[in-house]
Amino acid sequence: MISVTGDRLGTVELSGSSHAGGRVAYASYGPEDAPAVMVLGGISAHRFVCGDEDGTPGWWPGVVGPGTFLDPESYHVVGIDYIGGAGGSTVPVDGPGVPVVTTADQADAVRAVLDHLGIHKLHAFIGASYGGMVGLVLGARHPDRLARLLVFCAAHRSHPMATGLRGLQRRIVKLAAAAGRESEGLALARELAMTTYRTPEEFEKRFVSVPIWEEGSPHFAVEKYLRVQGEKFSRRFDGRAFAILSQSLDLHDVDPALIQVPTTVVSIDSDTLVPPWLIAEMVRRLPGTGRTIRVASNFGHDAFLKEKKAVGRVIRHVLAEEVPA
Amino acid sequence: MISVTGDRLGTVELSGSSHAGGRVAYASYGPEDAPAVMVLGGISAHRFVCGDEDGTPGWWPGVVGPGTFLDPESYHVVGIDYIGGAGGSTVPVDGPGVPVVTTADQADAVRAVLDHLGIHKLHAFIGASYGGMVGLVLGARHPDRLARLLVFCAAHRSHPMATGLRGLQRRIVKLAAAAGRESEGLALARELAMTTYRTPEEFEKRFVSVPIWEEGSPHFAVEKYLRVQGEKFSRRFDGRAFAILSQSLDLHDVDPALIQVPTTVVSIDSDTLVPPWLIAEMVRRLPGTGRTIRVASNFGHDAFLKEKKAVGRVIRHVLAEEVPA
Repeated sequence: MISVTGDRLGTVELSGSSHAGGRVAYASYGPEDAPAVMVLGGISAHRFVCGDEDGTPGWWPGVVGPGTFLDPESYHVVGIDYIGGAGGSTVPVDGPGVPVVTTADQADAVRAVLDHLGIHKLHAFIGASYGGMVGLVLGARHPDRLARLLVFCAAHRSHPMATGLRGLQRRIVKLAAAAGRESEGLALARELAMTTYRTPEEFEKRFVSVPIWEEGSPHFAVEKYLRVQGEKFSRRFDGRAFAILSQSLDLHDVDPALIQVPTTVVSIDSDTLVPPWLIAEMVRRLPGTGRTIRVASNFGHDAFLKEKKAVGRVIRHVLAEEVPA
Repeated sequence: MISVTGDRLGTVELSGSSHAGGRVAYASYGPEDAPAVMVLGGISAHRFVCGDEDGTPGWWPGVVGPGTFLDPESYHVVGIDYIGGAGGSTVPVDGPGVPVVTTADQADAVRAVLDHLGIHKLHAFIGASYGGMVGLVLGARHPDRLARLLVFCAAHRSHPMATGLRGLQRRIVKLAAAAGRESEGLALARELAMTTYRTPEEFEKRFVSVPIWEEGSPHFAVEKYLRVQGEKFSRRFDGRAFAILSQSLDLHDVDPALIQVPTTVVSIDSDTLVPPWLIAEMVRRLPGTGRTIRVASNFGHDAFLKEKKAVGRVIRHVLAEEVPA
């Protein structure tokens, strides 16, 4: 277990940005004079990327953390809670409706944390899913703050099917909240999201189609699995945070031509949420410093969490490469 | 406009089946001495397959109906309303909970209509989506009642991802109904279903990702499209019918080895709801009389409605073929 006490855990006030007065919470691990690596994940990830004081492992177990591919013994690893999200970061209330928090706002929050920690230039920024989007914007807005960018399962924009499905999730939560049942709505929305994080092929291997009869009503194995996922999520998320970050995913839009950083993008062949063709479209438009690594997996978008060995090896390889100064 | 008055439109009482006392509504078109073809579609299709007395076209326009590939000038065309569905058919109330109506029950309802109309053997049964499932069960339960079976976008069972997504749809409707907002829930459920009927590729071509800002809130073109689809559906369906037929799709399960009828199954390469691999699994197990025709389309499951020419040509070809008596 690694210590994240005292100075290694804190919040930084945002200034000058569209959410001035908000605070971004961070956690930092490992030697401060080691190469610094910031690691951000999906909308339900958090700053405790290498684990917390209670011994709970980080959100990317087997990939990032003590004894894994990205080890805080050798790197200065930093995580943040997304502003507007369910963690320790805050955004000021700015009227009715869902506050608009963009991936550019998150990139500015990242910069504020780097300033606070005295990290002039990251050895690498590693982002997966929403964190990958934030990394891409960081590479466009603050290219001097990172030597290399490694992105998993993210592109320059969301595609309309992903946006359609997330809009539905937000409306499910809204309808449930209006009926005084927000947490049920959150659970249903997460269940729907889970179907977009995985694939029919994985579900086919995992769940039988035969119904289980209970008091004359049929139930299915896949339903029980989804319910558990939804309930887990609804216990640690609230409707406001979900609405903000879900909307932020749909608002994400960055011109690849502006990303002036050596960039590696990992795409998963079965990812329907961020399909390989969308990543290919982006990488073609990167200004001469981009490449794609395609990983075969049955796990779809969630492959960045499930294919630990393949993902960890890419991280290890990219961190060890020489890049132009 | 074709006449479906008088004897050509009616209901038949079900007897001896698990829904005895229920009634199945049918419509029949064209010369009664012409080869008879029954045509059933998705859960929102209806018996007016060649149009109704008000001049409203059928649910398969450009494919089935006067002047199309399957023309009631040359065939005796029959459609039914699904029992338990939103049309003119009924099932007796049998206690609390969602009545269990299986594709076998629908196949028995088909047989009751054939008996009533004096059709000993259909020249062909053509079914798409849920109608395809019913056709497969008909071929297993009552093989003597059809000379050939043509199925679009249906397999011997549902796969777990489809079941997971439909379970979510049913729970959305249930939650909304409990809050006194059933029709909103039905609309949301249909919107979710629409995302499974189409493909990311089609949406990518059709909708821009750029948000439309209204009073400080972002909206997306794809959301507006889905909303229109959902509202349309919620005006002509009710929660009970939706729950019955949605559950029926998930309960569908027929042993391909029992389908003793020459069978042609059309699979769409981009159909994620009934993927080609599931159809291939079924066709391999048909007792020597099956074949698959693969159609390339960006429209996914809905290709049976959208690819009119490809679909119509398959119908025309299959109807004209010689089959063993």
